[in-house]
Amino acid sequence: MIKSLRPTLSSNRLINQLFRTLSQSNGYENDNRDKNYNKNNNGQYLVLGTTVAFIGYQIYDITRKKVYADAQIEVDYDVGKHKQNLPTYTVEEVSQHTEQSTGIWVTYKEGVYDVTNFVNEHPGGEQILIAAGSSVEPFWMLYAVHKNPHVYELLESFRIGNLSNVDAVSLTQDMSDPYGRDPKRHNALIPASKKPFNAETLPSLLVENFITPNELFYVRNHLPVPNINPETYELEIEIEGRKKSKVFTLEDLKKMPCRTITTTIMCAGNRRSEMTKIKPVKGLNWGAAAIGTAKFKGVPLREVLKLAGLSEEDEENFKHVQFEGDDVDVTGKMYGASIPIWKAVDKRGDVILAYEMNGVPIPRDHGFPIRVIVPGIVGARNVKWLTKVVISKKESDSHWQQNDYKGFSPSTDWDTVDFKKSPAIQELPVISAIGKPLDGDTVKVEDGHILVKGYAWSGGGQKIVRVDLTSDGGKTWHVANLDHQDPAEPPRHWTWTLWSAKIPVDKNTKNMEIWAKAVDSNYNTQPEGFENIWNLRGVLSNAYHRINIKLEH
Amino acid sequence: MIKSLRPTLSSNRLINQLFRTLSQSNGYENDNRDKNYNKNNNGQYLVLGTTVAFIGYQIYDITRKKVYADAQIEVDYDVGKHKQNLPTYTVEEVSQHTEQSTGIWVTYKEGVYDVTNFVNEHPGGEQILIAAGSSVEPFWMLYAVHKNPHVYELLESFRIGNLSNVDAVSLTQDMSDPYGRDPKRHNALIPASKKPFNAETLPSLLVENFITPNELFYVRNHLPVPNINPETYELEIEIEGRKKSKVFTLEDLKKMPCRTITTTIMCAGNRRSEMTKIKPVKGLNWGAAAIGTAKFKGVPLREVLKLAGLSEEDEENFKHVQFEGDDVDVTGKMYGASIPIWKAVDKRGDVILAYEMNGVPIPRDHGFPIRVIVPGIVGARNVKWLTKVVISKKESDSHWQQNDYKGFSPSTDWDTVDFKKSPAIQELPVISAIGKPLDGDTVKVEDGHILVKGYAWSGGGQKIVRVDLTSDGGKTWHVANLDHQDPAEPPRHWTWTLWSAKIPVDKNTKNMEIWAKAVDSNYNTQPEGFENIWNLRGVLSNAYHRINIKLEH
Repeated sequence: MIKSLRPTLSSNRLINQLFRTLSQSNGYENDNRDKNYNKNNNGQYLVLGTTVAFIGYQIYDITRKKVYADAQIEVDYDVGKHKQNLPTYTVEEVSQHTEQSTGIWVTYKEGVYDVTNFVNEHPGGEQILIAAGSSVEPFWMLYAVHKNPHVYELLESFRIGNLSNVDAVSLTQDMSDPYGRDPKRHNALIPASKKPFNAETLPSLLVENFITPNELFYVRNHLPVPNINPETYELEIEIEGRKKSKVFTLEDLKKMPCRTITTTIMCAGNRRSEMTKIKPVKGLNWGAAAIGTAKFKGVPLREVLKLAGLSEEDEENFKHVQFEGDDVDVTGKMYGASIPIWKAVDKRGDVILAYEMNGVPIPRDHGFPIRVIVPGIVGARNVKWLTKVVISKKESDSHWQQNDYKGFSPSTDWDTVDFKKSPAIQELPVISAIGKPLDGDTVKVEDGHILVKGYAWSGGGQKIVRVDLTSDGGKTWHVANLDHQDPAEPPRHWTWTLWSAKIPVDKNTKNMEIWAKAVDSNYNTQPEGFENIWNLRGVLSNAYHRINIKLEH
Repeated sequence: MIKSLRPTLSSNRLINQLFRTLSQSNGYENDNRDKNYNKNNNGQYLVLGTTVAFIGYQIYDITRKKVYADAQIEVDYDVGKHKQNLPTYTVEEVSQHTEQSTGIWVTYKEGVYDVTNFVNEHPGGEQILIAAGSSVEPFWMLYAVHKNPHVYELLESFRIGNLSNVDAVSLTQDMSDPYGRDPKRHNALIPASKKPFNAETLPSLLVENFITPNELFYVRNHLPVPNINPETYELEIEIEGRKKSKVFTLEDLKKMPCRTITTTIMCAGNRRSEMTKIKPVKGLNWGAAAIGTAKFKGVPLREVLKLAGLSEEDEENFKHVQFEGDDVDVTGKMYGASIPIWKAVDKRGDVILAYEMNGVPIPRDHGFPIRVIVPGIVGARNVKWLTKVVISKKESDSHWQQNDYKGFSPSTDWDTVDFKKSPAIQELPVISAIGKPLDGDTVKVEDGHILVKGYAWSGGGQKIVRVDLTSDGGKTWHVANLDHQDPAEPPRHWTWTLWSAKIPVDKNTKNMEIWAKAVDSNYNTQPEGFENIWNLRGVLSNAYHRINIKLEH
């Protein structure tokens, strides 16, 4: 799936290289986004901010040949604000302008821009095409260099209209299609399936920033996206055997003391496309980007459970916390999953009922208005559109808990599999992937080295302690720099580590295979290959990541 | 090290096979040992019980051709009791009778027996020689078939004397040797080093029982064994920055509410001898038996810390719990280690100050009178002869915490290593090993199959969910039966899993390589080979276990 975009991106490497140098400084602090929300007439929220804040990095402005050294600037800027007397375009209309023939349009907040003639001048080269027909905002979050008065001026000079604040999808809705009311997605999300919608972005974009922009965060939907009215939303908490459930409205939850948890979430099928090469498996053909990291704000589940009447004694008697989403299949069954109760009630578990993701209300694709965030545990248990929590002696009996998301021996096939014999995946094993370069890329050698960047993560609150890379089949290993890592210690280290390494290259080498493997704080490490971890569902695909590249000297 | 014993054991396979069938029923319940302790005149404890209890298994008595079906018998038997008018022998004297030429002697409680003429009749074959010169008790714990009135009668018929209750070592003590007061060990412990004493037993004995008999439990000593008088023993608890420490006597600790924790303890260097084959490493040449499982009774550390004045707020402000042992090096430095404070204070951490091991006071080699038991965490932090606990903002600054027991990249050597760059090993990664057959054994094929037995374990409270075996290099994987597994769920599953598998054998196959790998509840699995996990200290040696055997059809 991922590969389809690559051909258009692999040229113009020199400009990319320059751009990469310019964007080195981005890191944790790129999330200072505006937090004024206005509600649109569809019961949803749009970000309508106008304050742009940016702090502490060196900018070399190649157009104006001017250095904003160690800039400490805060600018109140009108870029992207609604402008009188300009035509209004819907998200759907903008999304059709992705090529030279139709004109290349992008959006920034409420502004619509025609950048057709700028594409060839863009310092980041054709990367701008990833945003064609969509918002540039996620990329400006990834590449802090854009947060520059000159860039805002330049963008505004391409202004052609205003973006309609009516949900684009409602205009084109097909009432007979259960997926007809799904939200409009960013063009940089590459679908693994469209109905239900499942998509990831390029790993090379992912590894640019510790926090993944919402628009580029992988989407894993099992069913159509519910359209929940936050005014009437209710969350029911049931303790098995008790007569009355406790019900919370969204306002009830928002009034409670909140916590912000930054966590990495990963699909159990991330990197499945590599396992598939050994022998076909059933499942979405994920690349290496079914993973992302976001800041979630919400209320600790343990506090909500206490209010619902869960005692310390109950914690010992019950074994599981079941979650039910509002997404429903054709037979009327809701999506469901469960986690062991210790995780929900332990103060070190950090489970929250989240209503914000990266500073904005959780987008519809990610669970609006409430998603349970279960750090360190597989995405499938971080149930979206959460409407019911059941404290139980049993696991969820949902298909996804019982007959999916489980691991098996490589010799187990669909004739012999017995799903009862394996436990449901909860905490995930250690994994890593190279994000830059991508498999098949041609890479320019500089000073006898190439730069390799990637991510590494481990479930269960474990921290990455080392990432090793080799370009000679394991004879020599290079230890990567851990560039971005949360200081939290295990077993409460929930986020990935972004790393980079300079791999030495011999001047006669034309092709290179690079392997990456990570080691976590339990000193667990990745298995070498997929042959011996292959499983019929293609989950837990965490073998060494291996890419082949061409070198340009 | 291990291999030295094997040649004498590899014959007599038919009798072994029979014996194996007889001993199938042993399991958890074989620990019903007598708990009357008498103190000897050296301030130590000896087990002097006379009640023998055994429950619920089928015995086929091959000598008397009689079946004790589903026996539920409790026998008060005088076997091993002191007998008037017999000569007294010291442990040291007994230990010199290990061959036909000297006579083969064994002990059982206070009894000394000459079994020279019985060796050839022993249904378990030459296995009896493992006990030559030592106690047969650990083997009677492993093989429940011995707990049979006829066997006790037979044993008593070989009685030649009484065992002296004076510590054998004190008789042969060399005052100039710091190791001169080390305790006498069982002959079945095979030393990896003698001073300090480090030893393991055969993996084939280990996998016979879920609980490892104390006498066969691997010993990892860094220094001479302290000789602590329990009457004057004191444990000091210091909270950094506070003026007064709190002191506990052994009696103080024993008066507190106690808990029993069954846990597996493993040395970070277990299976090092396999890693060494890739490239030499520094460290004891451990086989696959530097691991064992025991029931420890003691007082929860968190309760002791509360009594010492540790508040919930302190738990957040301090980061580490340092332990100091009474074992001292030539410069006067004590053995030291530390664990993260969350593990010590968390009710799910299950850390105890143990004074009993498998129902008896902790043997001197294992930390008498107090060893801190830190389940799920590497043996090195389960500090023996514990005399001091310090609540601190820093890790222990001991050699063993700072400059040992850490993992590194395969390309890090003694010239480039920087011990500051790696975290101290705490929770251990998933591991497994085949205990039966041993590498190099000749195995009889029965009904087209061979039986393979082993252990698997993972640190951090993770449970083993699957063990896979292959005899064709990974083309086909056989899922092992998990024969003995504690029902505790992760993250409080502290013990190993004993497993077995019947591997099909083609009738023309003469040699076979078998691989074993385990998967834990986080779905972490073992790395395939040692090449890419090699490290200069030879720790974390958890690649697939591979053995080569010969087949007898």
